[in-house]
Amino acid sequence: MRFTRRIVELSRSLETPVLLLDRASLRRAYARVRAALPEADCYYAVKANPHPEVLRTLAALGAGFEVSSPVELRAVLDLGVPALRIMSSNPIKPVAFVQAAHAAGIDRFAVDSRAELVKLAHHAPGSRVYVRLTVDNSGSEWPLAKKYGASAADALQLLREARAFGLRPYGLTFHVGSQCLDKESWTSALLLCHEIWRELDADGIELQMLSLGGGFPVRHTRPVPSLKEIGREAARVLRDLFPPDRVELTVEPGRALVGEAGLLVASVIGKAERGQERWLYLDAGVFNALLEAIQGFRYQLRTERAGPPRRYVLAGPTCDSVDTIAQDVPLPELSVGDRVYFLNAGAYTLSYASSFNGFEPPRVVAFDDAPRLAREQLGEPDEAVALLA
Amino acid sequence: MRFTRRIVELSRSLETPVLLLDRASLRRAYARVRAALPEADCYYAVKANPHPEVLRTLAALGAGFEVSSPVELRAVLDLGVPALRIMSSNPIKPVAFVQAAHAAGIDRFAVDSRAELVKLAHHAPGSRVYVRLTVDNSGSEWPLAKKYGASAADALQLLREARAFGLRPYGLTFHVGSQCLDKESWTSALLLCHEIWRELDADGIELQMLSLGGGFPVRHTRPVPSLKEIGREAARVLRDLFPPDRVELTVEPGRALVGEAGLLVASVIGKAERGQERWLYLDAGVFNALLEAIQGFRYQLRTERAGPPRRYVLAGPTCDSVDTIAQDVPLPELSVGDRVYFLNAGAYTLSYASSFNGFEPPRVVAFDDAPRLAREQLGEPDEAVALLA
Repeated sequence: MRFTRRIVELSRSLETPVLLLDRASLRRAYARVRAALPEADCYYAVKANPHPEVLRTLAALGAGFEVSSPVELRAVLDLGVPALRIMSSNPIKPVAFVQAAHAAGIDRFAVDSRAELVKLAHHAPGSRVYVRLTVDNSGSEWPLAKKYGASAADALQLLREARAFGLRPYGLTFHVGSQCLDKESWTSALLLCHEIWRELDADGIELQMLSLGGGFPVRHTRPVPSLKEIGREAARVLRDLFPPDRVELTVEPGRALVGEAGLLVASVIGKAERGQERWLYLDAGVFNALLEAIQGFRYQLRTERAGPPRRYVLAGPTCDSVDTIAQDVPLPELSVGDRVYFLNAGAYTLSYASSFNGFEPPRVVAFDDAPRLAREQLGEPDEAVALLA
Repeated sequence: MRFTRRIVELSRSLETPVLLLDRASLRRAYARVRAALPEADCYYAVKANPHPEVLRTLAALGAGFEVSSPVELRAVLDLGVPALRIMSSNPIKPVAFVQAAHAAGIDRFAVDSRAELVKLAHHAPGSRVYVRLTVDNSGSEWPLAKKYGASAADALQLLREARAFGLRPYGLTFHVGSQCLDKESWTSALLLCHEIWRELDADGIELQMLSLGGGFPVRHTRPVPSLKEIGREAARVLRDLFPPDRVELTVEPGRALVGEAGLLVASVIGKAERGQERWLYLDAGVFNALLEAIQGFRYQLRTERAGPPRRYVLAGPTCDSVDTIAQDVPLPELSVGDRVYFLNAGAYTLSYASSFNGFEPPRVVAFDDAPRLAREQLGEPDEAVALLA
């Protein structure tokens, strides 16, 4: 979503913190993913933003959904999404979730351990299983490598054993880490998949699905590879290595679909000078919206003030020191009541949020295509608002 | 709350994750704080656990409340707590909160910046202000030093200026950091308070309140000083330095009141061997209950299994690697479905919790005095259950 005068005017009447959600931007992101990876079937990782407006918009486009808990499953089923458009890529699933998913007709589950095969054999017999592989996460800003993932050797063993458990060996998946900035991460992972695929083929085990996982980045303060570039690289490797008529290619984006569709509006609630530091306190912070800040995440910010940038420590509203969003943030001189806009903040701002200290997560205001509204109704250039990188 | 066979039996019929809340334990903790600091008026820091059962139990004992947001304020006012039993120690407060608190008759607010004096002058004229001082947080496991707090020089200036803003200079507060293990932290802070107090006295500004803040620790895996020891040390310093008839002493415990009253019950949902590591996955994790783990917090754990301890990496249920509770945790061999009990988990387990990935925070089951029930009804020793430190 672009930051326009229309956005500022729209948000002025709203109490903060508020997350503006542009459905048109979400639709464009879905189209971009489809265009970048035309062979791939797209499953939205619900954890990135489970708001009903997001799920409904994507469901209407025919997107699939990746879910991990009974709550996520119910949200998607309630929209009428058919079971064949749902899969579960969390390699360790609660029994209650497996039972509910199986009862709903879902038959595709990730695994990375023998205990999970046992669980699926018992609670979702006959299901198709795909192994989550450990791959390099060094290109990612929010690595996901250690907690899940089987080695190549373990993957081979799990897929060879699957039939003995009454399950169907189905495919491979991996996760290069969230907000991955290195497009080679996907191609290296595909090379590893190919080795396993070929070895199983020689055993007479024909895999079908290859999932590129998620991790596709959204622009914040550093340059990121485009989906198109990542897709082109992946397609080249796929074309060279995998039989085109036999691979069901899937992709599980979260942030790449919903990140740019959200704009977080916060207000300044206080200011203080502490030694050499100028602190600026907002009504949105680490606990109620910006948990990714604890790993050093930085957003692009906008304000309505002009003037030379000062360096601020940006903090949230709670009593807790962990609720410090970022050090050394350039912003013009701001006063209590001024607004601060966080761009591309649609992903993980609602889903990680708590109400710690009574400061509740942002409300969501959804609408269609704000930039177009701005041009048509106001006839003003998009950059009319004072901007600061 | 002690861990007894009765607790195990009680929780067996409950779905996990669940937080057992023992009101009798809460009442005993309140009595301990009162006994350790008999001169001090006790204000519960609502952020530690805002569950209605906690607030109701403490309100019935005549406790005061420390609140920071409209949500916390409303929760306390709705219980019929009078305004004179409520104060706000967050030095940076949203305008809407100040307005609501002032309208409710609350007139005691912490400050640590000039901008906050301006805000209070406008929205809560005539209020009593107390300055939050920066003090040493090196004895704390969850330090709170950087985000708030005025230097001694700034404190003097703020309290001298208060009258010019139509506010009343009232006192001093500080925070030694959450879960503070060094009892000297309080006495050093009191020495600093005394210097400021005396200097203002010489100017004809008579302060009244001295708040010892919070940070009183709860026993987890490391030994902690008792409330009694901390109280004795503080009383000695107070007796030597402050006029006994003129100081309103207050204390703002959170964890020290509610920590031991809560026992978190989780279930094993999966197991995996990853290289040399054994991983154990629970339905309670960093996002839905144990956020303090990100700063290295360790809880005492209990299970119902006997057997030699193995070393586990303990993780939560979500797709996210940040959802890893602790490395190298000694537990007996456990299976999917087994329960794991987190002792003294009443503080910050609900208030920090989100529903990330659809895994919801623990439900709360409140009751009275479980250990006594156990002895009376079962006639068994408390240690009948297989325990592991």
